[in-house]
Amino acid sequence: MISAAQLKKFSSLLQKKYRDEEHLFLIEGEKLIVEALRAGKVISAVMKLNGHSVSDELESRLNKKHIEIDNVKTEQFRRLTDTVHPQGIVAVVSSEGLIRDDIGGVSAPVVLYLNSITDPGNMGTILRTCHWFGVKEVVLSKECVEVLNPKVLRSAMGAVFNLNFYLLPSGRLVELKKSGYKILVSDMNGEDISDMKPHPKVVIVMNNEAHGADNSVLQTADGIISIPGSGKAESLNVAIATGIILFKITTL
Amino acid sequence: MISAAQLKKFSSLLQKKYRDEEHLFLIEGEKLIVEALRAGKVISAVMKLNGHSVSDELESRLNKKHIEIDNVKTEQFRRLTDTVHPQGIVAVVSSEGLIRDDIGGVSAPVVLYLNSITDPGNMGTILRTCHWFGVKEVVLSKECVEVLNPKVLRSAMGAVFNLNFYLLPSGRLVELKKSGYKILVSDMNGEDISDMKPHPKVVIVMNNEAHGADNSVLQTADGIISIPGSGKAESLNVAIATGIILFKITTL
Repeated sequence: MISAAQLKKFSSLLQKKYRDEEHLFLIEGEKLIVEALRAGKVISAVMKLNGHSVSDELESRLNKKHIEIDNVKTEQFRRLTDTVHPQGIVAVVSSEGLIRDDIGGVSAPVVLYLNSITDPGNMGTILRTCHWFGVKEVVLSKECVEVLNPKVLRSAMGAVFNLNFYLLPSGRLVELKKSGYKILVSDMNGEDISDMKPHPKVVIVMNNEAHGADNSVLQTADGIISIPGSGKAESLNVAIATGIILFKITTL
Repeated sequence: MISAAQLKKFSSLLQKKYRDEEHLFLIEGEKLIVEALRAGKVISAVMKLNGHSVSDELESRLNKKHIEIDNVKTEQFRRLTDTVHPQGIVAVVSSEGLIRDDIGGVSAPVVLYLNSITDPGNMGTILRTCHWFGVKEVVLSKECVEVLNPKVLRSAMGAVFNLNFYLLPSGRLVELKKSGYKILVSDMNGEDISDMKPHPKVVIVMNNEAHGADNSVLQTADGIISIPGSGKAESLNVAIATGIILFKITTL
């Protein structure tokens, strides 16, 4: 049985401050929990609403790891989720080593650099898209919304467990350049991506929709790339733009 | 000055039922109002929070149409918006003729058919993307979320005023086929869009993420198209998939 102190601690993980302090985060719903287990993540507790039923797959996966499911009451369960329609089961996962700050070992052909992506829905959708296209290396500027934010986790749909994250200020993009990466920045009035040429190692930089690329990014850029449009709309949503560019670059 | 009865009527427009009955809808924020005026939409009232300042552009556009801005108190203004951080100004716009059910006159090279797109954020982002790529003809199945839903309007960012909408059950897709359109349905295990060939008149059908294409859609299809992926993720977000396909088809 879960103690009052444990419940309080787990409930606090809905806030970034405590996620940072405890190196733990909450995930909700069976699908995400299975995804975390599949990816070999360390789960320290699983709690379900009294009477909520669990699939055989989840049960057997948890059994293998000797993880027990705690049954909790409705009032307790509500403290573990920020959703209006909770999914009946949550898990506490270790975030140890999930976000690195050393990009020295990165050598994948395509790396995504997210510069000040602050909207959780956009962040989650971008991560889900990375997973689709097999772009595993995701570098975040420190202004980005936290990838362990519950809203990000929901729209990422398990992608978080299949990607490698790095935290790197935009001023340090030059480190990737020095290791042989070509830095392509998405912005207005750049080269039409339809004319993009393949390159063995490329970093795609996506910027905040409202602020665009900052100077340190532009100074490091080997090229500016743009998505062709009819010229009538002001801008594209950043997650849509990322999807289109990742499609283009992974099918060159 | 705005009367209590008017305020009540305008406030009711936050609900679909009254939008349908009155053929009116609410838009919030100066940008959207300017966009509606630019597109020649009929605005029947503009209300702003006491003390909220308005740009010269908006003022002169409203003056030209002899539309006055009503100043309202905070409590009154709150009844006109569903946002947590209201933008200080709202307008009531006529929806007369905005959504047609006769697709007889449609002849654009690319038509987008949205089948059961129920999430307002996805719908809004899709419409914004259509506007970017100059895809003006958007056909909606009756299960789609209403395009005049406040959340859709927010994420569409003015695109709604620049597109032509049609309401058409998927069973009637055959009408577009008869008028010379090739019907391409986005689904799993279809033809890789990288190999897509240009066609003078094409309807792209996007389906609900959870339910996929229904039988009436599949029976009308001339082809199934898919976005190539690494095979590790279950699916792409429908707005991302739409963005990628519209990019591909408009740059062939």
